[in-house]
Amino acid sequence: MALADAGVAAEAVESFYLGNFAGPSFAGQNHLAPYVASGAGIRGVPATRFEAACASSGSAFFHAVTAVAAGVYDVAVAAGVETMTCQPTPRVTEILAGAGDLAGEVRVGATFPSLFAMIARRHMHEFGTTREQMAAVAVKNHANGALNPLAHLRKRITMEQALAGKPVSEPLTVYDCSLISDGAAAVVIIPLERARDFPGISLRILGIAQASDYVALDAKDDITSFRANRVAAEKAYRMAGLGPGEVDLAEVHDCFTIAEIVALEDLGFVARGEGGPATVAGWTALNGRLPVNTSGGLKSKGHPVGATGVGQICDLAIQMRGAAGERQVERRRVGLAQNLGGSGATSVVTILGAA
Amino acid sequence: MALADAGVAAEAVESFYLGNFAGPSFAGQNHLAPYVASGAGIRGVPATRFEAACASSGSAFFHAVTAVAAGVYDVAVAAGVETMTCQPTPRVTEILAGAGDLAGEVRVGATFPSLFAMIARRHMHEFGTTREQMAAVAVKNHANGALNPLAHLRKRITMEQALAGKPVSEPLTVYDCSLISDGAAAVVIIPLERARDFPGISLRILGIAQASDYVALDAKDDITSFRANRVAAEKAYRMAGLGPGEVDLAEVHDCFTIAEIVALEDLGFVARGEGGPATVAGWTALNGRLPVNTSGGLKSKGHPVGATGVGQICDLAIQMRGAAGERQVERRRVGLAQNLGGSGATSVVTILGAA
Repeated sequence: MALADAGVAAEAVESFYLGNFAGPSFAGQNHLAPYVASGAGIRGVPATRFEAACASSGSAFFHAVTAVAAGVYDVAVAAGVETMTCQPTPRVTEILAGAGDLAGEVRVGATFPSLFAMIARRHMHEFGTTREQMAAVAVKNHANGALNPLAHLRKRITMEQALAGKPVSEPLTVYDCSLISDGAAAVVIIPLERARDFPGISLRILGIAQASDYVALDAKDDITSFRANRVAAEKAYRMAGLGPGEVDLAEVHDCFTIAEIVALEDLGFVARGEGGPATVAGWTALNGRLPVNTSGGLKSKGHPVGATGVGQICDLAIQMRGAAGERQVERRRVGLAQNLGGSGATSVVTILGAA
Repeated sequence: MALADAGVAAEAVESFYLGNFAGPSFAGQNHLAPYVASGAGIRGVPATRFEAACASSGSAFFHAVTAVAAGVYDVAVAAGVETMTCQPTPRVTEILAGAGDLAGEVRVGATFPSLFAMIARRHMHEFGTTREQMAAVAVKNHANGALNPLAHLRKRITMEQALAGKPVSEPLTVYDCSLISDGAAAVVIIPLERARDFPGISLRILGIAQASDYVALDAKDDITSFRANRVAAEKAYRMAGLGPGEVDLAEVHDCFTIAEIVALEDLGFVARGEGGPATVAGWTALNGRLPVNTSGGLKSKGHPVGATGVGQICDLAIQMRGAAGERQVERRRVGLAQNLGGSGATSVVTILGAA
């Protein structure tokens, strides 16, 4: 679909970048990059799998963009894939926990819902963030996803439903958690000076950065903000020559509702502690000042882990081309994607501009 | 060790590239790149895991070198790691089989020894390659590894022992198969123009390429030669402006003895079908025309899958610095490393020159 959309032949692709978190654990198949590439008619050229937990394809995209921008390749494809529903939920939770610190937090029983529950608790303690504010993230993202024909769970929910959700890890309910999904996404990347040769290419990458931090939550100075987010955002803004106030729409990594609130703050859209109140005030709604996760986000569109980063880029492209139908936003010149790996050990931030 | 050897501080590293094939399957831990990087004092910068089966760290190295050569970073670290002995051998074999085509060859019972047994059989049929010629690879590599203090299995074997080895997959015996090893390797990469700032940096990368092909053996036109090897070698030679006749020593991917014979042919060191006879004639011995796998190779030094590609670069560096002790070769100006993934779906070829 990406090759056809861009008007690029498989034979023209010079390097293939595949994000995948845990194909070998979910489905058994490893060495996925040449497997997928050769299936798509891309053969001979470098075909490499990138793993950075839930930021796997964000990282693949970062490396592809960096290589094209540096003049190494003229045509690259960055893709992401994950099949998760082939395993029962407890096994999925166990596989996902492999992105935490096995020797520490996971050994004592932590899973990702419990890690993000601790983050939520601390955010509530520090800033007065409430369960209602987190639920408001879920209500908004479900409303957006209901309008997205590519979303996994197209179902509106009410604030009452969100607050009465089945508990997963206190204070998070099932409505605070993203979905276990199968999915894939792909984009074609070419240098600006060749844009005329490929009329299907429609967006500019203005800024991009990947950053890392400790894996274990207990190694971090502060768990209400992710240093990797802040470092990646600062670099991406600097590269783009833009600030958060100039962003028109964003896809952020709402693996849990609290993660969207933290992202709003780490990306500089609102001050520390203001992510919850801004959401309740409708600031991030489809018709708000900064529409966030108009795709439905990981919460409603779904979270096929290794596909999520490139999926965010595709979602921004749909909006920025004006092809988002019922959920189309008005201001769409600058879009930002933020893709988080683990509990903040990796972050990739990308800023896109209309062509 | 690599940072200290190069005289580079962890804080100076601008991007971290980690090759790892199957850490989540062997040891449970995923998201390994920021995990290892932060443990080594490398924090904030991109930290990414690369997977390309047994060429995982060859691929990490390729991407690191490409980024530094393109001017993206001034200091990069490429590393590789695998811990395999934590699992019983049947499980190791199953995890390794994930680099084959699960839906095809693996579903009908193939493991890597049986895939390479088919390759050996076909090579014997096409070219008259013999079990003695394959055994000669093992005898040579064990003799070299016995002299390498960092080798996993420092044990000389005789031709008689090699031929009488316990059968694994006819015609391959245990002496035709590489080892199940734990290991890690790392190198520091800087641009040439900064070489004076880092006196510990001692080799030039003259050429490098990564190539891909179908994963499944039955999809290939010919299984006695790997297209990915030939494509990568051709590109690397072209980049280096050198031919196979100018290479002084090589580390090649002898996951099975037949793979070393195929590599000698694919890399253009000998004509098709001549890999076996050349080995028996001592052409690749420590004192031969082209010493191959002076480290002991995957056969004797060991094959910690994700570490092997960068390990080969380290082994060439030891020789090319004249630090190989009892196994030191005389001609050491140009070294070549060839790192294979799966049954030829990935190949990375690197050509190093003395500084």
